[in-house]
Amino acid sequence: MAKRLIVIGGVAAGTSAASRARRFDENLEIILFEAGPYISYGACDEPYFIAGVVPKWENLLVRPPDVFRKKQNIDVRLHHEVTAIDPMKKEVTVHNITEDRIEQYTYDTLILATGARPRRLDIPGADAPNVFHIKSLESAIALDEFIRAKKPQRAVSIGAGFIVLELAEALHARGVANVILHRSDKPGKVVEAELSAHIRAELEKQGVGYVPNTAPKRFILDDRGLVTAVATDNETYPADLIIAGLGVVPNVEIGTAAGVLIGPSGAFAVDDHMRTNVPDIYAAGDCTETINRVSGLPHLYPLGDIANKHGWTAGENAAGGDIVYPGAIGSMHFKCFDLEVGATGIGEDEARRAGFDVFTNVVTHRSRAHAQPASKPIHVKLVVDKKSRRLLGAQIVGAEGAALRTNVLAMAVHAGLTVDQLADADLAYAPPFSPVIDPVLIAGRDAVKKLG
Amino acid sequence: MAKRLIVIGGVAAGTSAASRARRFDENLEIILFEAGPYISYGACDEPYFIAGVVPKWENLLVRPPDVFRKKQNIDVRLHHEVTAIDPMKKEVTVHNITEDRIEQYTYDTLILATGARPRRLDIPGADAPNVFHIKSLESAIALDEFIRAKKPQRAVSIGAGFIVLELAEALHARGVANVILHRSDKPGKVVEAELSAHIRAELEKQGVGYVPNTAPKRFILDDRGLVTAVATDNETYPADLIIAGLGVVPNVEIGTAAGVLIGPSGAFAVDDHMRTNVPDIYAAGDCTETINRVSGLPHLYPLGDIANKHGWTAGENAAGGDIVYPGAIGSMHFKCFDLEVGATGIGEDEARRAGFDVFTNVVTHRSRAHAQPASKPIHVKLVVDKKSRRLLGAQIVGAEGAALRTNVLAMAVHAGLTVDQLADADLAYAPPFSPVIDPVLIAGRDAVKKLG
Repeated sequence: MAKRLIVIGGVAAGTSAASRARRFDENLEIILFEAGPYISYGACDEPYFIAGVVPKWENLLVRPPDVFRKKQNIDVRLHHEVTAIDPMKKEVTVHNITEDRIEQYTYDTLILATGARPRRLDIPGADAPNVFHIKSLESAIALDEFIRAKKPQRAVSIGAGFIVLELAEALHARGVANVILHRSDKPGKVVEAELSAHIRAELEKQGVGYVPNTAPKRFILDDRGLVTAVATDNETYPADLIIAGLGVVPNVEIGTAAGVLIGPSGAFAVDDHMRTNVPDIYAAGDCTETINRVSGLPHLYPLGDIANKHGWTAGENAAGGDIVYPGAIGSMHFKCFDLEVGATGIGEDEARRAGFDVFTNVVTHRSRAHAQPASKPIHVKLVVDKKSRRLLGAQIVGAEGAALRTNVLAMAVHAGLTVDQLADADLAYAPPFSPVIDPVLIAGRDAVKKLG
Repeated sequence: MAKRLIVIGGVAAGTSAASRARRFDENLEIILFEAGPYISYGACDEPYFIAGVVPKWENLLVRPPDVFRKKQNIDVRLHHEVTAIDPMKKEVTVHNITEDRIEQYTYDTLILATGARPRRLDIPGADAPNVFHIKSLESAIALDEFIRAKKPQRAVSIGAGFIVLELAEALHARGVANVILHRSDKPGKVVEAELSAHIRAELEKQGVGYVPNTAPKRFILDDRGLVTAVATDNETYPADLIIAGLGVVPNVEIGTAAGVLIGPSGAFAVDDHMRTNVPDIYAAGDCTETINRVSGLPHLYPLGDIANKHGWTAGENAAGGDIVYPGAIGSMHFKCFDLEVGATGIGEDEARRAGFDVFTNVVTHRSRAHAQPASKPIHVKLVVDKKSRRLLGAQIVGAEGAALRTNVLAMAVHAGLTVDQLADADLAYAPPFSPVIDPVLIAGRDAVKKLG
């Protein structure tokens, strides 16, 4: 009899896992339960749908359920919420929402791809209909419809992670004024103070307010229950749209109830095969933690590419394979108006926590050759271990060519290069693409010089 | 008494060497002889000056001679042609062209930064005033003036290296029709057949003629001695402007006359300190060969960044320092209309010559995420050693993000990664900058799959 794989959740990790499992074993029975109405979509594209760059939300759907069903023989069940796992009986309990029925299914292997949910504002009024916690496709569709129907004039965004910064560009494109309230003075969590200053300058240049070291205290509601202003300790900011960007909370509840352990990040702990502590239960995606290979420390990286790789590994192994997910190095980048922002490896704080003897250095160089009028500044911060001289991480900000240079630096961190080896690299040069010595190499050379 | 360094040639390597020597030893006497009227310019920018992107030729001058003289105490002598070197007396003979006088100078150390000249067409009429061999700043200024004054309608370009391809875009911008005659069917020397096809397609799209496997036989001249057409074995192409792009010939004559040996590339052979075989004589830049670190084979890489690095090393060592130039891996990229073209490491031919057991693979992927309407195709070719699975080289072509991805791959080649390690890299992802799994990783994964 064919074995059965059950996958819980189908945004990115879940569909990646199911597809990979099918490629590995064409006879496996694969059932994918998704509580919501959509699977297989690019959540990272949501800000670009809000901005109008991606014209329709349907464009975000990578593959419709019927492709999974018909081409890959994956039994996709939408509106099916898994409510319990019995690891002894190897059985899941499922609420078939459409037919409002409880069903039971046994499994041979199970993959938790339950994702994460936005951390909710815990102040009164956070449930008002003009407060948006953006994460799922449904939340993005709702925000788009709200902007279209209600034509909000003034938004207040709370938090300054990459989604709030991407949405700042989107709100601007939709003609909505925007003030960002942030508990720190450094927007863009992944870059540290020297570089986050450039994000602040870009927000200012674009007319987006940024109020540092400020948390919302309470929402002021009108008689219809809509937020009309956000009060802080010092000021009150009028708003007819609230964007809450306080990070995410991994959906671990049905896993932990079944004995699956979470790690220090609050997400499921897994080994390099994406196995949890419970036999035959794997985990993947935004509900699952990842070891940063540079620091050895566990992280929750709720990023589409990481989810995809988690899913790939969990899917193959849950189908009987034997492949390793090597961990991540925290590479990410994003766009905020005319600025490209990226980071890879670890920052200076994490480097200290991991016990390195930390050296850091920031250089500013240009995106193109000397004579090119379109050349723009690029700022690069390197984080280096003084003892081994190894490149531990890098951060980069610039109006042009910064995002892809994150990956040049990521490859150096991935390879475990010293800063001396980085400085010795032979990178391509052409006037429209870089100065004669690339900013990445200038950063390396300058660090070598200062390290002696 | 202060020692004296003499530098012969001042385009890129020579000024880089002189500046570096000065930084290393503030008491050294440094004399730089340049036969032409200009030093310290970005020759790679010349096509962008012709195109009008760089508005004035003066913009190409990185630093004027007086900055070298006054700020760095470097004795820059323009219009001074070194005609002989006596390595026994450690003396150079110089023709002071302005004053038409022969002068003699002793040296303690000498750097040959004599550059390269364009290989000249050896068919009758190649000296006609409407035939341009582009290399020096003077040649670019002359071409610009010719286009402005004579308003040529039809160009024939001979050769299809990166300068001819960059100039094709420039001529198009200046409203000059252009037909490229090339001895092979593959434009863009650094990429191999699978990828050069995309360059041909781009030329066609832009209305530039490309005639493969064709050499000019003779020029047809009018009674003023101007070329009016180019005859080949099959056809005659009318033209009032000829661009000759047949590569370069290193200027080694005064060096070889003094006993400096050249290598298999025809350029000066040097050790990793940029020392020639003659005591106290160094060489750097377009007259000097470079070892490709992947193949171990010597190359002439007439590229601005390589010249700069050569000069840096030769300058420090000639001033008494002790630094190493580690060699190159052949990284380069260029723009041809809407196409970005890059290569790093070695191609499949060189890999075979170097004795590797060669595997190659080409993938086509996208520059941005699934839903982004601006996403464009990217083509990546990997060259891998079957035995060690090491990445030996990569080539990349695409309308967006290909040039900087050359450097992501260059870092992998530089680090000596296997294709398995390449595929395991954690690269940043955001919808405006890449698909969820970057084309570089897709190329690695596909190679791993095929290699088994």
